[in-house]
Amino acid sequence: MTMSLDDASVNPADRLGKALAGDMAAVNTLIRERMASEHAPRIPEVTAHLVEAGGKRLRPMLTLAAARLCGYDGPYHVHLAATVEFIHTATLLHDDVVDESQRRRGRPTANLLWDNKSSVLVGDYLFARSFQLMTECQNLDVMRILSNASATIAEGEVLQLTAAQDLNTDEGIYLQVVRGKTAALFAAATEVGGVIAGGSEAQVRALADYGDALGIAFQIVDDLLDYGGSDATIGKNTGDDFRERKMTLPVIKAVAKADAEQRAFWSRVIEAGDQKDGDLEQAMALMTGHGALESARQDALSWAARAQKALEPLPAGDLRDMLADLAGYVVARIS
Amino acid sequence: MTMSLDDASVNPADRLGKALAGDMAAVNTLIRERMASEHAPRIPEVTAHLVEAGGKRLRPMLTLAAARLCGYDGPYHVHLAATVEFIHTATLLHDDVVDESQRRRGRPTANLLWDNKSSVLVGDYLFARSFQLMTECQNLDVMRILSNASATIAEGEVLQLTAAQDLNTDEGIYLQVVRGKTAALFAAATEVGGVIAGGSEAQVRALADYGDALGIAFQIVDDLLDYGGSDATIGKNTGDDFRERKMTLPVIKAVAKADAEQRAFWSRVIEAGDQKDGDLEQAMALMTGHGALESARQDALSWAARAQKALEPLPAGDLRDMLADLAGYVVARIS
Repeated sequence: MTMSLDDASVNPADRLGKALAGDMAAVNTLIRERMASEHAPRIPEVTAHLVEAGGKRLRPMLTLAAARLCGYDGPYHVHLAATVEFIHTATLLHDDVVDESQRRRGRPTANLLWDNKSSVLVGDYLFARSFQLMTECQNLDVMRILSNASATIAEGEVLQLTAAQDLNTDEGIYLQVVRGKTAALFAAATEVGGVIAGGSEAQVRALADYGDALGIAFQIVDDLLDYGGSDATIGKNTGDDFRERKMTLPVIKAVAKADAEQRAFWSRVIEAGDQKDGDLEQAMALMTGHGALESARQDALSWAARAQKALEPLPAGDLRDMLADLAGYVVARIS
Repeated sequence: MTMSLDDASVNPADRLGKALAGDMAAVNTLIRERMASEHAPRIPEVTAHLVEAGGKRLRPMLTLAAARLCGYDGPYHVHLAATVEFIHTATLLHDDVVDESQRRRGRPTANLLWDNKSSVLVGDYLFARSFQLMTECQNLDVMRILSNASATIAEGEVLQLTAAQDLNTDEGIYLQVVRGKTAALFAAATEVGGVIAGGSEAQVRALADYGDALGIAFQIVDDLLDYGGSDATIGKNTGDDFRERKMTLPVIKAVAKADAEQRAFWSRVIEAGDQKDGDLEQAMALMTGHGALESARQDALSWAARAQKALEPLPAGDLRDMLADLAGYVVARIS
C-alpha cells in the first residue's frame, strides 16, 4: 500500500479511496468475479446495474482502512470488503422492493427495470455469495460478527416497517431502527477489519464504536437530505420518506413539539396517509418552525464527534486522520 | 436416542420422526427460540404462521438422521437441522412473493396475510439467523457447504424465473433448476449431518448423493402432483404451475412430442400466457396422450432408486433402512 500526500481540500472519502487504491481495485475485481453466475445471466445483469452505478463504496473502504490501520498485511481484508459490499447491495435490492422505489443513485431501480421477483432473488443470491466469501476467510469471529450484523439489519428493516405510519415512534425507536438498518453494517465493516488484522480487543472495540457512530450520523444526514437535498446530491427525490410516511428524526422532533392542530396534520399525512398537494411544503415549514431540522443536524454532529473520539485508541497517522475527517465530512454534506 | 421398532406399514417419514423424536423436539425448541425478535414482533408472527403450519420437517430430519447414522453424539446436529429449516422457510417466504402465491400448506400465505414487504424482510431475517446458527457449530466445512447451497438455491430460482415461459427449456435445464431450488438443500442437509459427525469421506459423499437424488425425485413428484394431486394432498391448487407458465418436467416431455398444432397450443398458453377456460384440461390431456406424466413418474422412480443405492457405503441398520424407504415413499405419493 502506498500512501500519497493529499491536498487537505480533497474530500476524505476520495482521499481514503486514493490511499487504498490498490486494495479497492482488488475488491472491485473480486466483486465482478463473484457476482457472475454460470447458469443464470439475469444475476450479473441486475447486479451490474447496481454495482456499476458508481456508489461510493464507503463500506468496503471502511473495512480496508480498519484492517490497514491495525497493520494487516494478508489477503482477506479484500474478501471481507467485498462481503460487506455484497450484503449492502443485497439490502438495497430488497429495500427498493419494500419501498417500491423507482430511482436509486439517479438511475431507475432494478425492480423497475426488471421486476420485483428478480430483485428479491438476486438479493438472495448476493446474501449467499457474501456468506461464501466470508467463509473463505476461515475466521469464526468474523463470521459471527457479520452474521449477527445481517440479522440486526433485517430486524431493523422489519422494525421500520411497523414503526412507519405510527406517530408514537420516538427517538429511542428511531435510533434502534437506524442502528439496525445502517449502523450495524458500518460497525461490522470496521470491526471485521480490525479482527482479521488481529487487532487488540481495545482496537477492535474502538473500530466497532467508530463504525456505529459514523453509521448513525450518516443515516441522520440521509434522512435530513430527504427533506432538503437536491436530486443531484442524492439521486432520489426530496420527500420520498414523507410519501412513504416514514417516521424519521426531523418528523419525530416536529411531532414532539406539535400543538393540537399540527398533530392533526401529522396524523392525517403520516397515519392516515391522506396526502395532498402542498402537504410536503407544510411539513417542511413545521419542521423548520420547531427547529427540528437544525436539532437533527446537531444530533448528527454529535454522533460524528463520538465517532472521532472513538478512534483515539488506534494508531495515529494518515489513515486514522482520514477516518476522523470522514466523520466530519459525512455531516458537512448538509451544512 | 431410542430407536423404536415400528410397524412397517407406517410411512417412513413418520417412522423417522419417531426414531428421532428427542432430537426433533430439541430442533423445534431451538427454532422457536431463534425465530423470536426482541424488537420486531412482526417477525415471530410471520414465522410462526409458516413454521407452525405443520410442515413435514423433512429437511431437518434428514440432517439428524445423517448425523446419527454416522454415530454423532454431540449437540450440533440440532443447530444444523434448525439452520436447514430456517433456510427452507426463508426460501418459502420469498418464493411465495415471487410466485404471487395465495395458499401454502392449505393456509393463506404470509404475503397475503401481511404483505410482500414483511415476507421479503422476514425471509432475510431467517437467512441471517440460519447463518448465525451454523456459525455456532464452529465447523468451517459445514459453513462452506451451507453457504454454497444457499447460493445454488438462489441461482436455481433465478434460472427458473428466466426459464419459465420459454418453450425451449429442455430436461437438462429443468434438472439444473431442480438441483438448485430443491436438491441443493436436501444434499446439504444430509451432507452436513455426516460432516458434523466426522463421517469418512466416502460416507459424506454417499449422504450428499442420497440427498441430491432424493431431492430431485421429490421435486419431480411435486411437479407431477401439480397436475394431478388434490388440494387435500398438497394444500395448493392443481394447475398453479400451469397458470404460472412454468416449464416443469411433464410439460417439457409433452412439448418435445408435440405436433405443429399442439406446439401452437403450448406456445399460446406458456409463451404468450394467453390462457382460457379448458386450457388446463387440454394440457393434461396432451400430457397423458404423450405418456408425459407416466414418463416423469418413471424418472422419479429412477432417482429414488439412485438415492437408495447411494446409501450402500453407510452403516446398515434401522436408520439406513428408513432413509431408503423414505426415497420409495416420496415417489409412492403419486402411485
